[in-house]
Amino acid sequence: MLLRMSTLFLRTLREDPADAEVPSHKLLVRAGYVRRVAPGIYSWLPLGKIVMENVARVVREEMNAMGGQEVLFPALLPREHYETTGRWTEYGDTLFRLKDRKGGDYLLGPTHEEMFTDMVKGEYSSYKDYPVILYQIQTKYRDEARPRAGILRGREFIMKDSYSFDLDDDGLKRSYEMHREAYIKLFDRLGIDYKIVFAMSGAMGGSASEEFLAPCVTGEDTFVACHNCGYAANAEAVITPAPPAVTAEHPATQVLDTPDTPTIDTLVSFVNERYGLGVTAADTLKNVVVKVRTPGSSTTETLVVGVPGDREVDFKRLEAALSPGVPEIFEGGDFAKHPGLVRGYIGPQVLKDLGIRYLVDPRVAAGSSWVTGANEQGRHAAHVVAGRDFEPDGTIEAAEVRAGDACPRCAHPLSIDRGIEIGHIFQLGRKYADAAGLDALGPDGKPIRITMGSYGVGVSRAVAVLAEQKYDELGLVWPREVAPADVHIVGTGKDDQIAVALRLAEECEARGLRVLVDDRSGVSPGVKFKDAELLGVPTILIIGRGLAQGVVELRDRRTGVKEEIPLAEATERVVTAVGCDQRG
Amino acid sequence: MLLRMSTLFLRTLREDPADAEVPSHKLLVRAGYVRRVAPGIYSWLPLGKIVMENVARVVREEMNAMGGQEVLFPALLPREHYETTGRWTEYGDTLFRLKDRKGGDYLLGPTHEEMFTDMVKGEYSSYKDYPVILYQIQTKYRDEARPRAGILRGREFIMKDSYSFDLDDDGLKRSYEMHREAYIKLFDRLGIDYKIVFAMSGAMGGSASEEFLAPCVTGEDTFVACHNCGYAANAEAVITPAPPAVTAEHPATQVLDTPDTPTIDTLVSFVNERYGLGVTAADTLKNVVVKVRTPGSSTTETLVVGVPGDREVDFKRLEAALSPGVPEIFEGGDFAKHPGLVRGYIGPQVLKDLGIRYLVDPRVAAGSSWVTGANEQGRHAAHVVAGRDFEPDGTIEAAEVRAGDACPRCAHPLSIDRGIEIGHIFQLGRKYADAAGLDALGPDGKPIRITMGSYGVGVSRAVAVLAEQKYDELGLVWPREVAPADVHIVGTGKDDQIAVALRLAEECEARGLRVLVDDRSGVSPGVKFKDAELLGVPTILIIGRGLAQGVVELRDRRTGVKEEIPLAEATERVVTAVGCDQRG
Repeated sequence: MLLRMSTLFLRTLREDPADAEVPSHKLLVRAGYVRRVAPGIYSWLPLGKIVMENVARVVREEMNAMGGQEVLFPALLPREHYETTGRWTEYGDTLFRLKDRKGGDYLLGPTHEEMFTDMVKGEYSSYKDYPVILYQIQTKYRDEARPRAGILRGREFIMKDSYSFDLDDDGLKRSYEMHREAYIKLFDRLGIDYKIVFAMSGAMGGSASEEFLAPCVTGEDTFVACHNCGYAANAEAVITPAPPAVTAEHPATQVLDTPDTPTIDTLVSFVNERYGLGVTAADTLKNVVVKVRTPGSSTTETLVVGVPGDREVDFKRLEAALSPGVPEIFEGGDFAKHPGLVRGYIGPQVLKDLGIRYLVDPRVAAGSSWVTGANEQGRHAAHVVAGRDFEPDGTIEAAEVRAGDACPRCAHPLSIDRGIEIGHIFQLGRKYADAAGLDALGPDGKPIRITMGSYGVGVSRAVAVLAEQKYDELGLVWPREVAPADVHIVGTGKDDQIAVALRLAEECEARGLRVLVDDRSGVSPGVKFKDAELLGVPTILIIGRGLAQGVVELRDRRTGVKEEIPLAEATERVVTAVGCDQRG
Repeated sequence: MLLRMSTLFLRTLREDPADAEVPSHKLLVRAGYVRRVAPGIYSWLPLGKIVMENVARVVREEMNAMGGQEVLFPALLPREHYETTGRWTEYGDTLFRLKDRKGGDYLLGPTHEEMFTDMVKGEYSSYKDYPVILYQIQTKYRDEARPRAGILRGREFIMKDSYSFDLDDDGLKRSYEMHREAYIKLFDRLGIDYKIVFAMSGAMGGSASEEFLAPCVTGEDTFVACHNCGYAANAEAVITPAPPAVTAEHPATQVLDTPDTPTIDTLVSFVNERYGLGVTAADTLKNVVVKVRTPGSSTTETLVVGVPGDREVDFKRLEAALSPGVPEIFEGGDFAKHPGLVRGYIGPQVLKDLGIRYLVDPRVAAGSSWVTGANEQGRHAAHVVAGRDFEPDGTIEAAEVRAGDACPRCAHPLSIDRGIEIGHIFQLGRKYADAAGLDALGPDGKPIRITMGSYGVGVSRAVAVLAEQKYDELGLVWPREVAPADVHIVGTGKDDQIAVALRLAEECEARGLRVLVDDRSGVSPGVKFKDAELLGVPTILIIGRGLAQGVVELRDRRTGVKEEIPLAEATERVVTAVGCDQRG
């Protein structure tokens, strides 16, 4: 491959795009890799297309190596398949829906569990056919509420999704482990820094699940890690260790006048000063009301969530815990319809009578005593005891997770970081096989219900993640396996240098390298250097003023190391540099 | 590449699918290459995916060789881009339209002229930037009224579309010629039989245009060819040679009672017998009323089309001639609203007074005399002369084209065949650049309006066309460049044969061949042979009963030639067979 910048469809930008907030978005646009078409919808320019295909190639190679078989489904899918599993409705607004000319309902596939299940059902019948792993690398669609950060969270994006089909749980575990190993290999090859964390299943259903997260300050996902035992989990999946039940006797509930206590802090100060309770914010019980909408339903359920007063409700954890239900804000008008709920003074004591479901943080153990609302304007209640004065309908993981919280495995303090999901592996179990009736005929003539896994890699997202992780103040710094070229040869100055640059480019190409050569005339050396740094090809060879002395310059984009080398050795040195990197 | 049939996700079918009418559809489904998801929407199974990627690779290589640069656009596109050119409306029901969660209008791209134009406008500004050729290989969407024949005419399909951008007409002609040459190379490499024919532009706008048609009895396109001068054209594009104007004096119009003459034939017999006119069907003027709908308009225009009575109106030619208007049938209720139009007895004499537009076949020359309707029940008129008794508003190419019609170039009789469009090259001109305001700044500082070409290859369709052209009673017969494997090695019988088949498969793979090996145990030789023939890999190597004598069988799928060869020479002979074919 030899790309000439004199004809390459590429125009770099000096300025960051106005709508870009994160580095990858700024750099991929400035360096001419992608262009915006609509919110969350991007085009790929030639260099971007090459990088994306490199990612896809690595993913494909590792999927094939583990025995995955590549197929391709349509993106435009009839409603029926997603009706059987309820996802036509459950997906809510995230699903792009449309009608064809005959009025038939279609969707743009956000993920293809149903389709793969039906495909296997159509082809396979005997236990001898299994196991099988199928995958596709395909364009997917999700109508994100907040598409952001360029191609990092797009509404049209490219994904590798694979699905395993096994006869039993052990088989599923094997398929899951094979994917885990393949993902480790492929993300290592791509040069992405990542962490494997426990995850929630969300709308997908199923049991065991891990995410591959790329740690990144601009990431949308929060995850915890324990540096003692190695536990790591997506914030949504963090399990709060429940304290033991309290058996001590508590005083009877006491209703207190608490004027002018709009916040937990003012409440704590007030009750300690006025009533000498000696409590902290963690001893107060904050009750948050939400409406929960079941997708497809026109009504909502009123739900109260109780968390210790020193913690906020984390809306993403709440969403994950309620999924496929969707929590909505409980507003003024809603309070007006529920006079029993006294805004700012809600306590759980009355919820059973009001017929409102009440879920609590696991820290609200049986027998624990709380300061909480007295369900009267201006009053709170002390010594409100779980199991005595109220009975929760269950627990919910909705309270925020904080650095220093105890690891659920070893109780060591957890650290908290942000990351971007780049892969997800998932033991679905039999949910989709049940919906489709996917059975294999067993050796005894009896049907065996198939168990499935589903596994995703964000192919287009991986490009953004690499840009987000690998850059410096000068521009992009691609790992070699995904770089748009192995070497960027820059001919500066007059025709001589450009002619030599082109000759070396051809020599390098003949040696099997992918070459980008800057053969533009009438462009200053400064602009060419800046472009080379911005584009981020790992090895840069500069044919400049030293040419008269038979010297050219070899640069390593990542380390910044520059070396003057004899022209006669240039091609060989480039080949060596590329080879070394590839081994490294 | 080594695919083992023991684990390959492939189940061949003995029966043709119920909904399949054409050979390619039957065979691609039976051989397990594709599966139907919805009308015109298909999934690709592993072997089908390989064949399709082979087609895409050849297309990509030839596009790159001519200097095309690959990009990738989204399929989900905002309405605005297609609003500027009017195609949001013009595309009518063929466009899949949808709304996002915020109510914004989107479409699924049927073709990307607008997007490419806007992209070039965004990156390029100077005349020095041009010319440029960009392409993508991408999934496209058209809500066909009659999706048919499996992947031959799908609603979701894969297409290579490219666009050229030039400063002047000569540049456009060069880009067009480059595409023409590249298409010849790539279709030759794919092994498709094709014919290059003149074409209409349809909704695309523009001037010079040719189609690459694959001759095929099941084809939807009709084309004419002249075996004298080489002229060839899509039926829609055939130009009817207009006879010279007639200067002879004609008798005055004569109105005739013509009872019981429901057809042209009965009319001709009647007027010749009763009135001794001595006319043929070609001397009668048949007037067909249609309603023409402009896409996006709620009203229709009434139009009368006049053709010689010995010819039918060809609805596809009529559609092409009226595009982007859409002709609709003029029904009973419509006649009721137009009492001036006497059904079965319409003559052009009254149309001007009725305010109805009248377009005629070019054979209706000035001064020509006709037997036609008298606009009264049961009566016709003779000696109705063009230019004297009626004045057409123009000509229209709507009459059927027939074998034996005169070639418009050399007047030799034309032949007529059917074919499938596999490629289309097209000098768009400045239509899209005008809509987008795509200019280059010229050397004199003045803007130069860019002129464009657009060029398509049906990638998924090419797979169907190859299946349609290359098969026999046993199954598919792939040309080597697109075949799912170079060699199909069949191990029949016991473990010995299968072990040897697997060893040879590995040897062939090590030599760089793509190998499919039938290593299934418990499957009869007959079934394996049938599968091999159905799948259509060009070279088949059978390890069967001869193994005991050190003999295996080499088969050529296309010619059917079988040869017993020594086991020791098998790999070498396969390599030779594959190499020979590739050169051939």
